Amino acid sequence: MLIARVVGTTVSTIKDEKLAGRKLLIVRQTDEHGEPFGKPFVAVDTVDAGVGDLVLTAAGSSARQTNITRDTPVDAVIMAMIDSLEVGGELVYRKE
Amino acid sequence: MLIARVVGTTVSTIKDEKLAGRKLLIVRQTDEHGEPFGKPFVAVDTVDAGVGDLVLTAAGSSARQTNITRDTPVDAVIMAMIDSLEVGGELVYRKE
Amino acid sequence: MLIARVVGTTVSTIKDEKLAGRKLLIVRQTDEHGEPFGKPFVAVDTVDAGVGDLVLTAAGSSARQTNITRDTPVDAVIMAMIDSLEVGGELVYRKE
Amino acid sequence: MLIARVVGTTVSTIKDEKLAGRKLLIVRQTDEHGEPFGKPFVAVDTVDAGVGDLVLTAAGSSARQTNITRDTPVDAVIMAMIDSLEVGGELVYRKE
Amino acid sequence: MLIARVVGTTVSTIKDEKLAGRKLLIVRQTDEHGEPFGKPFVAVDTVDAGVGDLVLTAAGSSARQTNITRDTPVDAVIMAMIDSLEVGGELVYRKE
Repeated sequence: MLIARVVGTTVSTIKDEKLAGRKLLIVRQTDEHGEPFGKPFVAVDTVDAGVGDLVLTAAGSSARQTNITRDTPVDAVIMAMIDSLEVGGELVYRKE
Repeated sequence: MLIARVVGTTVSTIKDEKLAGRKLLIVRQTDEHGEPFGKPFVAVDTVDAGVGDLVLTAAGSSARQTNITRDTPVDAVIMAMIDSLEVGGELVYRKE
Repeated sequence: MLIARVVGTTVSTIKDEKLAGRKLLIVRQTDEHGEPFGKPFVAVDTVDAGVGDLVLTAAGSSARQTNITRDTPVDAVIMAMIDSLEVGGELVYRKE
Repeated sequence: MLIARVVGTTVSTIKDEKLAGRKLLIVRQTDEHGEPFGKPFVAVDTVDAGVGDLVLTAAGSSARQTNITRDTPVDAVIMAMIDSLEVGGELVYRKE
Repeated sequence: MLIARVVGTTVSTIKDEKLAGRKLLIVRQTDEHGEPFGKPFVAVDTVDAGVGDLVLTAAGSSARQTNITRDTPVDAVIMAMIDSLEVGGELVYRKE
């Protein structure tokens, strides 16, 4: 899974019928401090995440292993909200 | 999913029989403003997209989860047309 | 799918028994003009491609969705020969 | 599989219900000497690994082939603890 | 598939039970001349390969399509030994 930050939202009217009602968020991978790097990608939200949240994303066929994404043409899912991260015994991120 | 722009078309006569009638478009990944970067790849269209459209693409086995791509040897699909993108509360892309 | 050019051939006597008789070609990804870049990889041919041909390759589990590759341990397949490519309304590649 | 070092831990209360009780560790890929490089990612532990351990990780659908991860939305798993690594006939890593 | 060279071996006592008896080799991707580049990764051997051999590796779910790797948590397999490689009509590698 990637540590990622939700940075935005997408609106799409014309899409695969199985995606009706799915929330497609724009996210960017971050380092362990929650600092984004690299280009944005889009993931289906399954945990009621919002812009600014630090989350975990799963990719590929694993993105379809939730009740919300099963059998849908999506290759990235937000499957957890991050409360805190600890690296080398030190707290490096805590949700405010 | 990747944010991508349709930049071109392919013509292929000799191909896997399950690809007969499928529209194979050339796309390039873009940033959240719709600016392309990186090398082109090819995705099956399922939403009647055309050159210039900003779309979402799904890769891998997820690309086969549409009625048009099921059980076919394709690893990328266009499964949504993008109407608009919002980043950090600001509208950064709107389809013209 | 990737746009790729067939650049060579492999010979392998000791291999998984399900690969007997499969043609394993060396390919390199190209840009939309058929110009190769990056390192070579190996894909199973299913369209009678030869050295010099511009082709499409599919990766991952999608590479196993042809009659020739089903249930075999291969992660890349040549599933189409490219006749022509058009980018931005301009013909950028045509098979000679 | 990647050679990786466990560098930290994550805490997540809101997550997919199938992840309840799973231990999600922060890891970084290493070279053959156990030297980390690149950005951290998160993998499910199945071998009782802890911070500092050198491990092997499997990605994608393969990450779901353990009793702990079956049918869960995870794309990386720690499936082995590394005792030692030998490169070119020379011992380059041994667990202390 | 990738062209890769076997560069080393791993020893792992604590691992997923389905990996008992599997040989996990350290490999590095090579160019068409067998010259390694990039970082090492680990693949399950199915063709009795040894250090120094030039091999083909398959990744992802395709790595589980052999009798030795079926249903196991591994994402890379050595499924062929390379005898020779020809690029542009010229022999660029032959096993000694």
